[in-house]
Amino acid sequence: MVIEMKDFERIAAGHQRPIPDGEAYIESLRGRGLRVFLLGERVAEPADHPVIRPSINAMAASYDLALADPGLATAESSLSGRRVNRFLHITETTHDVVMQNRMQRRLGQLTGTCFQRCVGMDALNSLYSVTFEVDAEHGTLYHERLRRFIRHCQELNLVVGGAMTDPKGDRSKGPVEQADPDLYTRIVERRDDGVVIRGAKAHQTGCVNSHWIVVMPTIRLRPEDADYAVCAAIPVEDPGLSFIYGRQSCDTRAMEGGDIDVGNARYSGQEALIVLDDVFVPWDRVFLCGETGFVAPLVERFTAYHRRSYVCKTGVGDVLIGAAAVIADFNGVPHPSHVRDKLVEMTHLNETIYSAGIAASHESHETAAGNWENDGLLANVCKHNVTRFPYEIGRLAQDLAGGLMVTCPSEQDLRSPETGPILDKYLRGRADVPTEHRIRMLRLIENLTLGRNAVGYLTESLHGAGSPQAQRIQIARQMDIEAKKKLATRLAGIEET
Amino acid sequence: MVIEMKDFERIAAGHQRPIPDGEAYIESLRGRGLRVFLLGERVAEPADHPVIRPSINAMAASYDLALADPGLATAESSLSGRRVNRFLHITETTHDVVMQNRMQRRLGQLTGTCFQRCVGMDALNSLYSVTFEVDAEHGTLYHERLRRFIRHCQELNLVVGGAMTDPKGDRSKGPVEQADPDLYTRIVERRDDGVVIRGAKAHQTGCVNSHWIVVMPTIRLRPEDADYAVCAAIPVEDPGLSFIYGRQSCDTRAMEGGDIDVGNARYSGQEALIVLDDVFVPWDRVFLCGETGFVAPLVERFTAYHRRSYVCKTGVGDVLIGAAAVIADFNGVPHPSHVRDKLVEMTHLNETIYSAGIAASHESHETAAGNWENDGLLANVCKHNVTRFPYEIGRLAQDLAGGLMVTCPSEQDLRSPETGPILDKYLRGRADVPTEHRIRMLRLIENLTLGRNAVGYLTESLHGAGSPQAQRIQIARQMDIEAKKKLATRLAGIEET
Amino acid sequence: MVIEMKDFERIAAGHQRPIPDGEAYIESLRGRGLRVFLLGERVAEPADHPVIRPSINAMAASYDLALADPGLATAESSLSGRRVNRFLHITETTHDVVMQNRMQRRLGQLTGTCFQRCVGMDALNSLYSVTFEVDAEHGTLYHERLRRFIRHCQELNLVVGGAMTDPKGDRSKGPVEQADPDLYTRIVERRDDGVVIRGAKAHQTGCVNSHWIVVMPTIRLRPEDADYAVCAAIPVEDPGLSFIYGRQSCDTRAMEGGDIDVGNARYSGQEALIVLDDVFVPWDRVFLCGETGFVAPLVERFTAYHRRSYVCKTGVGDVLIGAAAVIADFNGVPHPSHVRDKLVEMTHLNETIYSAGIAASHESHETAAGNWENDGLLANVCKHNVTRFPYEIGRLAQDLAGGLMVTCPSEQDLRSPETGPILDKYLRGRADVPTEHRIRMLRLIENLTLGRNAVGYLTESLHGAGSPQAQRIQIARQMDIEAKKKLATRLAGIEET
Amino acid sequence: MVIEMKDFERIAAGHQRPIPDGEAYIESLRGRGLRVFLLGERVAEPADHPVIRPSINAMAASYDLALADPGLATAESSLSGRRVNRFLHITETTHDVVMQNRMQRRLGQLTGTCFQRCVGMDALNSLYSVTFEVDAEHGTLYHERLRRFIRHCQELNLVVGGAMTDPKGDRSKGPVEQADPDLYTRIVERRDDGVVIRGAKAHQTGCVNSHWIVVMPTIRLRPEDADYAVCAAIPVEDPGLSFIYGRQSCDTRAMEGGDIDVGNARYSGQEALIVLDDVFVPWDRVFLCGETGFVAPLVERFTAYHRRSYVCKTGVGDVLIGAAAVIADFNGVPHPSHVRDKLVEMTHLNETIYSAGIAASHESHETAAGNWENDGLLANVCKHNVTRFPYEIGRLAQDLAGGLMVTCPSEQDLRSPETGPILDKYLRGRADVPTEHRIRMLRLIENLTLGRNAVGYLTESLHGAGSPQAQRIQIARQMDIEAKKKLATRLAGIEET
Repeated sequence: MVIEMKDFERIAAGHQRPIPDGEAYIESLRGRGLRVFLLGERVAEPADHPVIRPSINAMAASYDLALADPGLATAESSLSGRRVNRFLHITETTHDVVMQNRMQRRLGQLTGTCFQRCVGMDALNSLYSVTFEVDAEHGTLYHERLRRFIRHCQELNLVVGGAMTDPKGDRSKGPVEQADPDLYTRIVERRDDGVVIRGAKAHQTGCVNSHWIVVMPTIRLRPEDADYAVCAAIPVEDPGLSFIYGRQSCDTRAMEGGDIDVGNARYSGQEALIVLDDVFVPWDRVFLCGETGFVAPLVERFTAYHRRSYVCKTGVGDVLIGAAAVIADFNGVPHPSHVRDKLVEMTHLNETIYSAGIAASHESHETAAGNWENDGLLANVCKHNVTRFPYEIGRLAQDLAGGLMVTCPSEQDLRSPETGPILDKYLRGRADVPTEHRIRMLRLIENLTLGRNAVGYLTESLHGAGSPQAQRIQIARQMDIEAKKKLATRLAGIEET
Repeated sequence: MVIEMKDFERIAAGHQRPIPDGEAYIESLRGRGLRVFLLGERVAEPADHPVIRPSINAMAASYDLALADPGLATAESSLSGRRVNRFLHITETTHDVVMQNRMQRRLGQLTGTCFQRCVGMDALNSLYSVTFEVDAEHGTLYHERLRRFIRHCQELNLVVGGAMTDPKGDRSKGPVEQADPDLYTRIVERRDDGVVIRGAKAHQTGCVNSHWIVVMPTIRLRPEDADYAVCAAIPVEDPGLSFIYGRQSCDTRAMEGGDIDVGNARYSGQEALIVLDDVFVPWDRVFLCGETGFVAPLVERFTAYHRRSYVCKTGVGDVLIGAAAVIADFNGVPHPSHVRDKLVEMTHLNETIYSAGIAASHESHETAAGNWENDGLLANVCKHNVTRFPYEIGRLAQDLAGGLMVTCPSEQDLRSPETGPILDKYLRGRADVPTEHRIRMLRLIENLTLGRNAVGYLTESLHGAGSPQAQRIQIARQMDIEAKKKLATRLAGIEET
Repeated sequence: MVIEMKDFERIAAGHQRPIPDGEAYIESLRGRGLRVFLLGERVAEPADHPVIRPSINAMAASYDLALADPGLATAESSLSGRRVNRFLHITETTHDVVMQNRMQRRLGQLTGTCFQRCVGMDALNSLYSVTFEVDAEHGTLYHERLRRFIRHCQELNLVVGGAMTDPKGDRSKGPVEQADPDLYTRIVERRDDGVVIRGAKAHQTGCVNSHWIVVMPTIRLRPEDADYAVCAAIPVEDPGLSFIYGRQSCDTRAMEGGDIDVGNARYSGQEALIVLDDVFVPWDRVFLCGETGFVAPLVERFTAYHRRSYVCKTGVGDVLIGAAAVIADFNGVPHPSHVRDKLVEMTHLNETIYSAGIAASHESHETAAGNWENDGLLANVCKHNVTRFPYEIGRLAQDLAGGLMVTCPSEQDLRSPETGPILDKYLRGRADVPTEHRIRMLRLIENLTLGRNAVGYLTESLHGAGSPQAQRIQIARQMDIEAKKKLATRLAGIEET
Repeated sequence: MVIEMKDFERIAAGHQRPIPDGEAYIESLRGRGLRVFLLGERVAEPADHPVIRPSINAMAASYDLALADPGLATAESSLSGRRVNRFLHITETTHDVVMQNRMQRRLGQLTGTCFQRCVGMDALNSLYSVTFEVDAEHGTLYHERLRRFIRHCQELNLVVGGAMTDPKGDRSKGPVEQADPDLYTRIVERRDDGVVIRGAKAHQTGCVNSHWIVVMPTIRLRPEDADYAVCAAIPVEDPGLSFIYGRQSCDTRAMEGGDIDVGNARYSGQEALIVLDDVFVPWDRVFLCGETGFVAPLVERFTAYHRRSYVCKTGVGDVLIGAAAVIADFNGVPHPSHVRDKLVEMTHLNETIYSAGIAASHESHETAAGNWENDGLLANVCKHNVTRFPYEIGRLAQDLAGGLMVTCPSEQDLRSPETGPILDKYLRGRADVPTEHRIRMLRLIENLTLGRNAVGYLTESLHGAGSPQAQRIQIARQMDIEAKKKLATRLAGIEET
């Protein structure tokens, strides 16, 4: 079996040199002829669609931060021998794992949304160690293929999306028991030169904004599920791929032309359904094919990385805490102790989330393949707090905002010569603060707690990287209850038999 | 001073007989030439605007319920000697107060939103006893005027909106200290035949859907604030009134033409800014004019009624709990104990809210004027739980819904011949449940937790009838800490001196 | 079968007239020769034992309150035609049910502990309606027997303890599956003149302080469990009964001779294990015998009453809130807003508990037998909040108390001439408050959150009348999820088929 | 000024070589003639008093762990050039700070209580950097004196107690405003050879079990408070010291002779009031004397270390979680999902505490003096969670335990030939588990949630190292709200002026 590089080359042809910055990144997305559907229509150029563009801007921020703060957002890779964007870096030390968290929080602060590049980072790092172990057991060549693929991405500074979540159909049934076998993504044909894949991946963060998609299985598989055990890299412009854009709360405000009611005019997240319509993937981009026994470790390792990646939400939390503090100022109530107390509570919860994430990263260990992986139990604890605290932080932010957040007339009314002056007069808070500033801040809080970025800050905090119950199962597995029982038995003076 | 009935007559002219049902109510709203502004434009006919209409439907439900369940939604009034809609009834027994809560919960269940008719009910009942007491002290005639006004509304079965909340400007300053004296609604001229009022009322629930607006002051006033101490009834079609419609999360989905993505196609709430541009009100519709000492009792009495009226949210909670149970079924996970456990928790929280509301009503007392008023402390406790538990109920509903709630493509995509079949295939949950049903249920949960009715279920639960801090102040006033200290001192064996 | 009154007469012989007050009640307990074991020894006279006496004082308070506030603590009984202690009253109106709650809260305030008389009240009321229904179905005579028994108790003003909880052994097994068949109380012999009962009842509140014990089964029974379906009244001095006293946190402080370190010198609760060593009960005191189908209704009805009886804990909560307010004063920090805020939070939680209890009572319905029973769902909601909020109220009280609560030296050190003056100097808070007063208040808070009455305020709040999971099961049964699903389905626009 | 070593020598005379193990440590405490008062009497030999001994055993565990796991509990000190107990180690790397947390958790697991040696460790480390900075500003010699003192302690392997908390009197007043100036510890005389100190230190953890006490001021001081700015090392056997033992919930059970009802027979915590009756301290043991400006940094630095030291409670939490799991087994209910779910919740909360502590340690920075100090914000977050979660973990443990935990008869009843067999029969849970084992486990849970070690696990978790409000103030100081405001302002599109 020969590893062919022709696909890499095709992709590379479009990128003569590494993408240098956010602007070039946005340019790299144009003209790809993707099959993207939004609001019932195929989108001519996603990069220019007002609903899509803010999500691209958020991804672009990951390029610009690498320039603005290379210590934070780039790393020296021994794989390609060059300084690469940290999102493409295979961790070589505990420090590398920790720095991912710091970068994530910073990007959350800068964009106030999901910047969509973590899934790929966590997918590459988990595949890195798992492919090594598959090869060791099965004599396959996945690890070397993956290293080449990563090198290629590093050299051109590409965006890699990780695609794990299958639609799953009836949750009470496994892949082969479904009425429709395609409800889990699977190999429908094995050929000499590669495999043909069919299915879909749901809730795909940033997929339209990526250059490559790496598909992975989503649940622990049994031997009879072998066709579902497939990992492979697919270029986003593969003609077999379609993307049906997920709608978000208040998404069409971006099409109204203003920049106030959107709340956060520049940045948003992105989720879409990817449909794989019998996509052919050559062997050199296949990283798992039928080895069902390694799917559970892959999923567990990926979620270990990814559940701690949710510290990005603490960066978003910083924005929301700041917005709550500003609106209390603007409303004219900066002094009362209850305002200060709520800001402290929000901060306490936000830092509690951060603590578990960064602790998981600090407590990393080396894998057999040589990269570093964070602690799994603390990562689950981090994510589990993420499923709770942003809701309470959001509630407190709404408390400080006041009811005007949900009763304020539209930007068009504010701009109208007839109603504009009336609103300017009556919606003023502190006399020295322009009414528009007050409204902008209210719209930002609305954006984060009900609107477009509430999707990422709240609901996606709940379900991304696994729903709460998934963390509880994992905590149950790792809590070592037998050891704890022994501690108690000894202190209770019970002699063990 | 003679009480003139000419205004009542003018209004009455448009309604020859009591409005019999919801359909006639909707008809009664047409052709009024109101100055309503929405999304930057004046609305030709609010009753037919797709964004406004669902809020009218919700109000109309209060008429239809009176027909469908008269024991629940009507009452025998000794004031007009007829059976009237309960929203227009002055409570004559404890049972009357309790029945308000039962009706409110039922309407919440039927509409899944704010049906907007409680403020008026609570305003009339609190004014009823306060005007009686003002007259007793000042020899004024407010109480009799109010009784005539209520009789008029009962006879024609009209909607009365209560307008209390002033814009307030800088929260750290009182009415007369504001840079702009109009930031609290006030009398700008006292004439022989009445008063001229200027200002605005913010967050006005259902105002466009009302026939009359009763303005009231919003905070405890000092003697120097006499111009701000005004209560008066104003017909909604008064040319001096303008209404600038508040925008809600996802409001424009109602203009997209479908009935899925709106989540709850038929019903929504409504809040608008009312601007009073030097509105003249004749004396026979003035119920308070300068008696600042009675403003605090009025506000306190109104909030006592209104904070317990928030049991309506338990009706909405019933819908959300039901939706969560259905979506768990549709997803194919009806059995796991954690689903059952979450439904129990949601129910427990919902019933805890209900308990405090209904307890407050059961523990009513008679006022000097002869109507009945609920317990104030328990009403505050009820409302304070409303500022917390719907957020947790909403979080649990989102937990059971799954991430598809925020990543599901649009109704247009579902209807599109190109993407529709793909979505039908891949977004299916349990094989025997139509994909569209599953999506409809997800959209209903989105509607209640992020979308249009999240405004009422969450943020308005927080701030309506007073923000959390207002309840804490009231609880502090009513908790009788000195009596509790005595209990403790006695049991600790400390002799009091 | 003839109902014989000889047992009643024997009991009555000792009480020529109704017990008039607390003092006479205490006297009525002396010289009964009970088999009570405490700290490894048989107690000569329980009424004089320093560990037991405070629990008797608490029960006595129920007698004294009847004198001090007859409107609250007595009722006119149509059964005996006399005014009786409310604890012995069969509810004849909703008002009667509500008044139970008001009396319970007041006694909680006065004693700061469990006054132990509710179980009997709730047992008699639930047996009242169940025996009526058993007789209707089986033609038995239980109801009339029970009425006689109640009349007897009313006439002599006796204390009736309800004994439901069996030891239960292995929780995963039913009565007949246990290795030892006695782990559930059962009939071991049926004779012409009565039945012989064997077994034990655990956690029996106030049993040593009672005149009669009414045993009842503890769980839903199957037909094969017929021997376990027995209800009967047994005099406490029956020679077949033994009582092994439960030890409580800090119980022996009552034997140290002081009155400070005990925290609440006068009052405490009581729980003991009752052992029934083949106790013979004549038929006229048997109220159920083998009718297994009525056990579930009995248990459900009893817990419906009893779970709402836990509003007594809000009376105890009043004491604890008062103590927290006093200690903040004594420490010299009465002003800071965080103290006030914590007192408000404690009150809010306490009143939330109360709300659900009193709401359950207000929402009572009449039974077939003619007495009144509270709402079951709200009673479960009440109790479920009782399993949570006292812990948080206790935590906040400890917060305001400060660490001295658990590091303060002993009363003996305070009384010692060597260390007393030193403690007086260094443990002083505000200069004008005697150090001893400060310590007394700290000991009261310790008593309620760690010490003797923490047993009742915390742990017993958790498990009494059923552990949290029991309420969740009951809420699940009563939440009518199918009706809620219909509400959601309708609003989502899904046509039902 | 000459640094004299005579005191060190005196102390050293009693310890010819480093204390090698726990047994020798206990021996080292004997015959010191301390003035210890307990329950109103002076204690002849504290090391042999049944109430005190368990706290000595817990301290001794810190010696034995150093032998059993030297990697965990010892460190190479560059100060003395030898391997020393980690509690005496001045941190030289981030790893050293992290290892403190790991050792603390382990000791919590092994003892189930407070092992009392952290205060000294944290005091030495904070004084280490502060004295360096005082010297740099004032030209004093404190740092070198401190280094000698530490070296001495390391060489003999002594226990150093840190004594910070003053009695404080009236909380609303500062040191000099108190009615009694001794309510804060102060210098009453400055002599050529040293200073004379008077006052008291409250809640002193492990003080009777220490060899040295290092006193420190407790609050931010003003220039006029110079006499209160004193740090000094005092030998525990100084005749000017008295110790009045704090009483704990259930403390006297240790004097009853058994080993069941105590719950944890071997280990407990200790807190006492230290009285300093004009204690003379020579200059070579004085580490601060009047430099009020450095008191705030000292307190802040000490609390930064110490608030994260509370991860010890996660070790105790491990015991309690284990006990809850065992008792569920013993009761016969190991299977139900709600048991598993509660264990997961307890673990989640416990690990959330741990996360913030270990994260604070990982995020350490070097001080000017060259030792390492953990992050302050995360340490406060850790401690703040400690003031909340143990109460919830305790509540859940009581939930799983069942009510028998507070109604179980005494050990004496269990041992009595009369009642023992009855209890053995009726208190049995699962048939194959000895009743005594079940009771032992219940008593352990009682010990940790109501009894002796609840003092440390609950109340002391609340107030140790500063009450909750102290953490909130510190979080407010460190939350950098201005930076967060800027993030929000930028994203809201508000141009800053």
